[in-house]
Amino acid sequence: MHHLPVIVLMTDFGLTDPFIGQMKGVILSLAPAAQIIDLTHAISPQNIAQGAFQLGKSIYFFPDGTIFVAVVDPEVGTSRKAIAIKTDRYTFLAPDNGLLTSVLQGDNIRHCVHITKEHYMLRTQSSTFHGRDVFSPAAAHLATGVSPLELGHEIEPSACAKISLPSCTASDNGKAWNGHIISIDHFGNLVTSLDSKSIDFSREWFVKTAGCPPLPISVTYGEVAEQQLLAYVGSSGMIEIAVRNGNAAKLLGLRDGEPVWMSET
Amino acid sequence: MHHLPVIVLMTDFGLTDPFIGQMKGVILSLAPAAQIIDLTHAISPQNIAQGAFQLGKSIYFFPDGTIFVAVVDPEVGTSRKAIAIKTDRYTFLAPDNGLLTSVLQGDNIRHCVHITKEHYMLRTQSSTFHGRDVFSPAAAHLATGVSPLELGHEIEPSACAKISLPSCTASDNGKAWNGHIISIDHFGNLVTSLDSKSIDFSREWFVKTAGCPPLPISVTYGEVAEQQLLAYVGSSGMIEIAVRNGNAAKLLGLRDGEPVWMSET
Amino acid sequence: MHHLPVIVLMTDFGLTDPFIGQMKGVILSLAPAAQIIDLTHAISPQNIAQGAFQLGKSIYFFPDGTIFVAVVDPEVGTSRKAIAIKTDRYTFLAPDNGLLTSVLQGDNIRHCVHITKEHYMLRTQSSTFHGRDVFSPAAAHLATGVSPLELGHEIEPSACAKISLPSCTASDNGKAWNGHIISIDHFGNLVTSLDSKSIDFSREWFVKTAGCPPLPISVTYGEVAEQQLLAYVGSSGMIEIAVRNGNAAKLLGLRDGEPVWMSET
Repeated sequence: MHHLPVIVLMTDFGLTDPFIGQMKGVILSLAPAAQIIDLTHAISPQNIAQGAFQLGKSIYFFPDGTIFVAVVDPEVGTSRKAIAIKTDRYTFLAPDNGLLTSVLQGDNIRHCVHITKEHYMLRTQSSTFHGRDVFSPAAAHLATGVSPLELGHEIEPSACAKISLPSCTASDNGKAWNGHIISIDHFGNLVTSLDSKSIDFSREWFVKTAGCPPLPISVTYGEVAEQQLLAYVGSSGMIEIAVRNGNAAKLLGLRDGEPVWMSET
Repeated sequence: MHHLPVIVLMTDFGLTDPFIGQMKGVILSLAPAAQIIDLTHAISPQNIAQGAFQLGKSIYFFPDGTIFVAVVDPEVGTSRKAIAIKTDRYTFLAPDNGLLTSVLQGDNIRHCVHITKEHYMLRTQSSTFHGRDVFSPAAAHLATGVSPLELGHEIEPSACAKISLPSCTASDNGKAWNGHIISIDHFGNLVTSLDSKSIDFSREWFVKTAGCPPLPISVTYGEVAEQQLLAYVGSSGMIEIAVRNGNAAKLLGLRDGEPVWMSET
Repeated sequence: MHHLPVIVLMTDFGLTDPFIGQMKGVILSLAPAAQIIDLTHAISPQNIAQGAFQLGKSIYFFPDGTIFVAVVDPEVGTSRKAIAIKTDRYTFLAPDNGLLTSVLQGDNIRHCVHITKEHYMLRTQSSTFHGRDVFSPAAAHLATGVSPLELGHEIEPSACAKISLPSCTASDNGKAWNGHIISIDHFGNLVTSLDSKSIDFSREWFVKTAGCPPLPISVTYGEVAEQQLLAYVGSSGMIEIAVRNGNAAKLLGLRDGEPVWMSET
């Protein structure tokens, strides 16, 4: 049995308006058998960096051939480009504003296209909702077999906007790492920019942030008592600070952007 | 490859309870291949007018044959009727309370049915959740080929409840238009009842509301500086007031129902 | 036309992070034609009892063969088991912490399996997100025809964790029933542990709670005036207290756990 590619939607549109439902209606009008999945629609309004990070951490959980529609688009309707990027395994549609930074950092880009062909857009377009009027019909056309090259003309990936993704920096000859809180999740866990990939775990580290005792790195919540603070490598590979069966953001009163650091003592 | 019609759900049930999940279970029990799409479940509780407006603005983004289940139902369990309306392109299921006003205003109604046949409802029905017990099984039966006429008996569309949809009125010999704020969207944009279809855009207009300077009509957010107010024709065709990369509802402290007007000076 | 089983997800993960989207990506990578339905992701964080109750009340609305993935998992990563239970009609995947209590109370369990085979898990596992790394791939494998017995080794259902589900107790020789508020729904209705299955409705009952006059049991909201309190048998079979077109939780200032009782006078 042959299946259409999965179409994944990630936006800052929320779920309180009919925006996402309308996007799905447009997609299904053109590709009735498409399987549409919501990655999340709770990216903070206009927060391109958050969207780029969450997208980058989620891509590889999806099947080969998946088409990602990512829309965090503060400059919708201006001259910012709409782009399509085809890699070895996936296709991405987004405004050219840095949202696809992690894709652009890869070495497997086959095509990068500036979307311009009106034929593949809704006949009547708003100037404020390209998620529905430009990106959704493009995704549906790709799902039914249209090549990304037909959507417009090829451009150099190097001409596309990139932003700085959350990162951490070594200091004190690698004996310390400095980062910050990049998001608070649904449970109140603090997700930090301290990336487990950068860190030598043969050493013993202590994670520190304002109002918090130095925390060794645990493996599971179960290693500390109820309501106690702990640090661990979260499911996205970043160091997180949590309270077992509690809410670390509330307990510590911390928000996005606050500094977090890590050292051997 | 043949596909079942899309079933679209719009309710005021929210997503915090298993209500919508249970509706989908009922539908898939009867129509396992149905494609079910959420338009939105965040209609304000019991707000029929808001539901009727959001539904009316969303219908034509969906493919021909789509079955809409719309449930904002403060009188569930009373003698208010459950109805099915088949138009040239779509079928609608809803309580007879005005929620289908925009459908009833069309001239393409083929059948209007009072749903009464228990055979097409869940065997055990609650008196407070017809979304699950009456409308979901009806939608599933329609999706598998049952005619709306089998669900009950035909009634005159003119006998169905209609409500006033958001509108604006001309004054001063067409030199001004009066309307109001009809909703605040996820971004804090103020959606107004000033409908771009009624307005002569060869003239220059200024949009006004409490605490806000007169705003010319922009095309994109990019026409004003960051954090500045602007007015524009929104994605639903209504005039909206927004703050570029900000939240107009918070800045102006305005809510649903507040007057908005527009004039040439 | 043959269809894969429906996969139903219920968690306490919320919809603000990409957690649920990533779970769906994992499932579709292994079972591209799966139909995935969200029951709800708004179980209160770590509230196993609430999850067990909502799941138990929702199961039978889904088609035979449905695979339920239920994750409320405060002890993720510790030695608590991951289990799969196959009954006559359904399969359930969950941490062994009481979340499947209503399933374990049934008499139709065919297999109860401790999930241990790494072959059916994601290659790289986090220790904090088994919903994505253990339960989602297991559900996808089951959907494509793998037997639950292949996921690990059989255990006795009696060895699995059970918790007390919300219940009410008779007093005064059956002339009164004592219970409590188990949840507040999206509309502010108070769902109580007074179960209509336990109650003799040939008698006349009055429902009472703090700050609320004794309420007879109504059938529909329409039996009382706007903004008036009423009690009725809710769509889950439990007695609920509501305000017609209003919010009972706000009006009465009550929360989960508050006592509710019912007597003949």
